[in-house]
Amino acid sequence: MINQLTIIGTGLIGGSLALALKKANYCNKIVGLGRNPQRLDAACKAGVIDEGTDDYRQGLANADVVMISTPLSTYATVFENIKPHINETMVLSDAGSAKRCVVEAAKQVFGNIPKCLVPGHPIAGNEKSGFEAASPDLYAQRKVLITPLPETNTTAITTVTEMWQATGACVEQIGVDLHDNILAATSHLPHMLAFGLVDSLAQQNNVDQIFRYAAGGFRDFTRIAASDPVMWRDICLQNREAVLAALDLYEQDLAQVRTAIEQGDADTLQTIFARAKKARDQFTY
Amino acid sequence: MINQLTIIGTGLIGGSLALALKKANYCNKIVGLGRNPQRLDAACKAGVIDEGTDDYRQGLANADVVMISTPLSTYATVFENIKPHINETMVLSDAGSAKRCVVEAAKQVFGNIPKCLVPGHPIAGNEKSGFEAASPDLYAQRKVLITPLPETNTTAITTVTEMWQATGACVEQIGVDLHDNILAATSHLPHMLAFGLVDSLAQQNNVDQIFRYAAGGFRDFTRIAASDPVMWRDICLQNREAVLAALDLYEQDLAQVRTAIEQGDADTLQTIFARAKKARDQFTY
Repeated sequence: MINQLTIIGTGLIGGSLALALKKANYCNKIVGLGRNPQRLDAACKAGVIDEGTDDYRQGLANADVVMISTPLSTYATVFENIKPHINETMVLSDAGSAKRCVVEAAKQVFGNIPKCLVPGHPIAGNEKSGFEAASPDLYAQRKVLITPLPETNTTAITTVTEMWQATGACVEQIGVDLHDNILAATSHLPHMLAFGLVDSLAQQNNVDQIFRYAAGGFRDFTRIAASDPVMWRDICLQNREAVLAALDLYEQDLAQVRTAIEQGDADTLQTIFARAKKARDQFTY
Repeated sequence: MINQLTIIGTGLIGGSLALALKKANYCNKIVGLGRNPQRLDAACKAGVIDEGTDDYRQGLANADVVMISTPLSTYATVFENIKPHINETMVLSDAGSAKRCVVEAAKQVFGNIPKCLVPGHPIAGNEKSGFEAASPDLYAQRKVLITPLPETNTTAITTVTEMWQATGACVEQIGVDLHDNILAATSHLPHMLAFGLVDSLAQQNNVDQIFRYAAGGFRDFTRIAASDPVMWRDICLQNREAVLAALDLYEQDLAQVRTAIEQGDADTLQTIFARAKKARDQFTY
């Protein structure tokens, strides 16, 4: 149980956490903290949060757990805003899609890594945005990765773990850099590729015909290209090194495919495609 | 109505056509023609076809419509096998994912474009293979593109159009090269990209961890990488020029994304991602 949870950024991710914890009766009060009073009002009226405020002092005064679920580029500012109001009994966590940048921003603002900080990342979401798209079931049976540091207070780890478990998620601990490398490969890179493909098609003269004759494969392949541009801009920039490394490997593979097509090399193409199919068939999520 | 339909290649595509036409009571007899008697027997026992044979004379003797649904690389051989048994009242069509190569193969084997040939392409399918994966509803409310040529007999066009309509599909006519360019962009290129991504991940040391923490976005993005390697090898090679042209455009866009990430250029990234999102949001299939 949490007495007061304060969520900074009540969009799809923060809003879904609020709804899931309400469904589980896990919090006495959920406060939304943000810059836009109208959106906070709307989130209150929609029953996503109990109260909304744009005042950090007020929003954090009685918070037991503080969850940051804003785009990664805002973290330094958010940490600065939190800093005067943080206290020893508070637990601080986040839902950002990259974790090294969060640790670095915390170090920079706080001067060290706060013991109460438990960086986290729910491996869930969809291409929609805003609390209107939030669902109490978004995290059910999904994984939440937390990346605690040597400095992290074990009580804080337990608090964050149990909170996510109350949403139906399965919580696993993983290293900060391993997290960033894996997510670069399975999430950040695919988003880049999908955004890039749709953008390259959208700029062609016959874009209407192109979309007219597109089928289910295209729909699924490009679904993630409808994701929030700001969120993904930030992820690409904040996890830059891992994303570029994943892109390097991918481009090497794609160059092999291109050469095989250019040279009419059926054997190489079939080998690559069959190897990919075998790997994909084993991924049964 | 068709008295006898002969399907050369009773896999997912040919098998689903057979099941759909059986459901609609549209054929008196459906014959499967193929190289593998055991597979044909199994397709008979599964109720997908009424009879199976590996003898072209026998399979084509009483055929009113002949449908080719084998990988594109087999077409020259299939046309050679059909040639001695073709007659003026027969209608010949196919379900290949590229169409210029079909027209060229027909010219080469028959010496000209047979009047009875109606090249076609159902924009439907999934990542599964074989008649075991066939469904009578695969084509319901899907598009089937046919690319008749100036030489094509109008009666043959009507016969093929009505046959596909009986499966619940919507049939549209389109030019051969326009078809190949559009499908290169919306189907062939995405398959290449998905195969390439999964293959590049599968070769990394931590592939188990990578797949362990992959989520729904990855699942959808890579679903098409489980498709039939032989079929897609053939498509890439047979629609080579259009595929390489689509790949060129894509690589230009991806290079812009890469440069923006390298340079920390948030504005360019956001512009590209937002443009892609806008285009994808308009695609409501």
